[in-house]
Amino acid sequence: MATRRLPHDRPQLSWSGWGDPAASAPLPESLRAVLRDGLGVGRPTPAPASPAAVALTAPSLPEATGRELAAITGAEHVRSDHETRLRHALGKSTPDLLALRSGAPLAAPDGVVSPASHDEILEILRLCSEHRVAVVPFGGGTSVVGGVTPHADGFAGSVALDLARLASLQELDEESRLAVLQPGLRGPEAEAVLGQRGYTIGHFPQSFEYATLGGFAAARSSGQASAGYGRFDDLVLALKVATPAGTLTLGRAPKSAAGPDLRQLILGSEGSLGVITELTVEVRPIPATRVYEGWRFESFAHGADTLRRLVQDGPAPTVLRLSDEAETAVNLAHPDEIGGSPATGGSLAIFGFEGDGDDVEFRRAAATAACRGAGATVVAQAGDNWARDRYRGPYLRDALLDAGALVETLETVCFWSSLRGLYAAVGEALRDCLTALGTPPAILCHISHVYRTGASLYFTVACAQRDDPIEQWGQAKRAASEAIAAAGGSITHHHGVGSDHREWYEREVGSLSVAALRAAKRTLDPAGILNPGVLIAADRVSSL
Amino acid sequence: MATRRLPHDRPQLSWSGWGDPAASAPLPESLRAVLRDGLGVGRPTPAPASPAAVALTAPSLPEATGRELAAITGAEHVRSDHETRLRHALGKSTPDLLALRSGAPLAAPDGVVSPASHDEILEILRLCSEHRVAVVPFGGGTSVVGGVTPHADGFAGSVALDLARLASLQELDEESRLAVLQPGLRGPEAEAVLGQRGYTIGHFPQSFEYATLGGFAAARSSGQASAGYGRFDDLVLALKVATPAGTLTLGRAPKSAAGPDLRQLILGSEGSLGVITELTVEVRPIPATRVYEGWRFESFAHGADTLRRLVQDGPAPTVLRLSDEAETAVNLAHPDEIGGSPATGGSLAIFGFEGDGDDVEFRRAAATAACRGAGATVVAQAGDNWARDRYRGPYLRDALLDAGALVETLETVCFWSSLRGLYAAVGEALRDCLTALGTPPAILCHISHVYRTGASLYFTVACAQRDDPIEQWGQAKRAASEAIAAAGGSITHHHGVGSDHREWYEREVGSLSVAALRAAKRTLDPAGILNPGVLIAADRVSSL
Repeated sequence: MATRRLPHDRPQLSWSGWGDPAASAPLPESLRAVLRDGLGVGRPTPAPASPAAVALTAPSLPEATGRELAAITGAEHVRSDHETRLRHALGKSTPDLLALRSGAPLAAPDGVVSPASHDEILEILRLCSEHRVAVVPFGGGTSVVGGVTPHADGFAGSVALDLARLASLQELDEESRLAVLQPGLRGPEAEAVLGQRGYTIGHFPQSFEYATLGGFAAARSSGQASAGYGRFDDLVLALKVATPAGTLTLGRAPKSAAGPDLRQLILGSEGSLGVITELTVEVRPIPATRVYEGWRFESFAHGADTLRRLVQDGPAPTVLRLSDEAETAVNLAHPDEIGGSPATGGSLAIFGFEGDGDDVEFRRAAATAACRGAGATVVAQAGDNWARDRYRGPYLRDALLDAGALVETLETVCFWSSLRGLYAAVGEALRDCLTALGTPPAILCHISHVYRTGASLYFTVACAQRDDPIEQWGQAKRAASEAIAAAGGSITHHHGVGSDHREWYEREVGSLSVAALRAAKRTLDPAGILNPGVLIAADRVSSL
Repeated sequence: MATRRLPHDRPQLSWSGWGDPAASAPLPESLRAVLRDGLGVGRPTPAPASPAAVALTAPSLPEATGRELAAITGAEHVRSDHETRLRHALGKSTPDLLALRSGAPLAAPDGVVSPASHDEILEILRLCSEHRVAVVPFGGGTSVVGGVTPHADGFAGSVALDLARLASLQELDEESRLAVLQPGLRGPEAEAVLGQRGYTIGHFPQSFEYATLGGFAAARSSGQASAGYGRFDDLVLALKVATPAGTLTLGRAPKSAAGPDLRQLILGSEGSLGVITELTVEVRPIPATRVYEGWRFESFAHGADTLRRLVQDGPAPTVLRLSDEAETAVNLAHPDEIGGSPATGGSLAIFGFEGDGDDVEFRRAAATAACRGAGATVVAQAGDNWARDRYRGPYLRDALLDAGALVETLETVCFWSSLRGLYAAVGEALRDCLTALGTPPAILCHISHVYRTGASLYFTVACAQRDDPIEQWGQAKRAASEAIAAAGGSITHHHGVGSDHREWYEREVGSLSVAALRAAKRTLDPAGILNPGVLIAADRVSSL
């Protein structure tokens, strides 16, 4: 089957914030008043005016190495201009955006290399291993955990390996419902090229518009419809991976008993073990019916109990989400979501059903019965509003930061029996820490993903910025992370480890697990050039 | 919660064949006639009369080491008598049973150690690492791929680590639907202790009666109801693992983005990376309704197409199986399964539905519509007969071997688009090879497990034994394995790698994957004592 390459008219992600700059919106005056009166937000901290206003560390890559890279990809695919370096220096966490605003020079890659093939990537990795150049695989650049920031101490330099030119559908196997896709495809691009054939992946995380398939796989992304379609790591059936030591080709069946499932070693490896150059992903026919609806429960606890029963006893909706009372009331992330509804108390659930008509009706009837049995009531328009605004959350953050608010999110996951304790502990830790710093926060939470044995919690925190908001958030994040560890949660359900969660990750899986992973890394990446400092601490191995 | 320990009145697995010796049945005369007239089976090769009639290699474990082991577990839990060694020398493959019949001395462990706790296992592993004693973790002893045969070349000796004393339910978390269980519990024991509380794991492989939970996890077992409950590797949410380098504690949530899913490194590791000492397993309420039914399709291809549509478009049955025309007609493994039905042509499918009444009816109606649409007809009693005899297959093999037939099974899995080619290629390879050897075979096949993206094939082969039936089967197995590799299948869907599939496993995942796995093993098991020769070839590392 012929390779289908997409035209490269992709919208560019804002260099200083989230999304398409043309789609950013000013903060409503009503929200400004809430920030001012409720949280004491007062001192605007605007984003830099232009890329040129942001200082970057001086590049250190030897010119000769740059020429050798250019010989692999062609000179036009090795860029080291200021704006390109800046656009590959950071992800999209609040600390990233605050770092941009701080005026301090940012650690940026010395250059950005854009290969066109698996073989070019193998060559680049061999070259960079030989010259000890750190390589940061770069997809959409949407990491919120420091997953793309170069950590090049001890290296001759660093390059971002931008996968944008690997953006094709390679093969569609309709009988097996599998698509072979390249890693640089963004969410909407993959959906468009599959949609032409009548298929969808069904993976819709909040970062969908800009994140790439390679990133979804490398960071174990989870989409909003995970209850129906599965997480992205559930959907990846085979992988081709370029490493400094050669090629891995993993997965020739849905499941197998041929040893450990080594696909799972690459999924979640965040570019530290290899570069995913091809993914075989399960696809499904585009559903005939999509219905989203809102239900208001008396309390978060009542709603959580219903979500648990629906997913445990089935049949489960495709989307299940539940906001706590604070998020339901404030609805900071989606200010107009339930604007038309008569009351704002209780706890708002969103259920989505996607499939053919009979299946949707069967599942919807079960959910309706469960909700009614729990005393919940329908909230008109809430489902459609959620679907309309499902990717809008991050857009609001830029304006909030500009206005002087500190806004960030964090997420975790645990088994159901730990959920109440985890919810309480994280909220308390954030509240206590930020209140002690003189900036009492608003804390909102929702259950974003449910499983038969547990669920994830997604927190949004907002307060006034202090003088050093990066340090301020660092303290709050540390307090929350301690609470997560103590309450039995995982440090991340779908954001990944990056460099920000590394310490917590090592505590979570234990030093022996990290040692085993490091041993595997030494085999695949003997010079330790792949995304150093991400996932596991760099270990200084002698050069090749 | 109090630990619940089961009384140790477990039925003992036949030392020379399968199952409870009291439940073995003689071969019906009708079948003897088929063997004689159809396959030329003539020369009986009876099993040895008693354990004493089987020669074992001489033990080499230093007495002092035996005393040190006894100091850990108590002397009564270190056994080296002939029968105990014999009972831990082999699994239950046909080559294993033929080796017993061959008269040649069997490689047996020097001793059998039965620890009572995780900590005792840690001590045993440290001691054996120090003295370079090979350790074979031993659960039910039901491996059919050479997973428990000691490979002690280059070691001071070998011990089987029998996990029978770790056989308790540790904890039941009803809210999260999780049970913490010890690895030595056999299938029926786990179901009994959970059943008292109203729960089931839903994992029912053909080895269910004797295999243990630790083995299910270590070898990535798949049960007959995998379409409904998932494979065992889907059901394991957390693991505690003893390794020579210390303890791994993995899994604190259903899913997480905290790095690679390291549970998946242990699942499928077959005792080569560590000893699973505790499993947290998903449980479900015992279903109110269980219905099994048989449908006859015009052909295997028609039936396979319907199974694929049912699992891809849903709602799927809990059990889906489909015999090819040969298996449907001969029904060697279940001679009385469809005895009462009027015709034996076509291709017999078994569908099972387990759940609450509404759910069962919804799914059953969908399956009925799909079957009728494909022109299939109901086969009365076939479903109930299958359910009654679901664990009986291996019982028949002993009598067949005694009568002089060579009978063995093998299985594989691939994506749907490769299934027809894989089916044809494996059948042809087996037929060509055995016919060339002068023993034309009967070859039966069924689809045993289905996924949205693919399915497994389970072959049963029967022919007359030649002079050296181990070599005879070895040639047939090699021909089938080459065909599997060439047709894009995995060398095993649910039997595991053991030592028998090791070469094919290494070809399947590639040398770089094996090197990464070996590196992880060196970290967890620096002296290389854990199940040497299983999964990956032993690499001779200097002793600690």
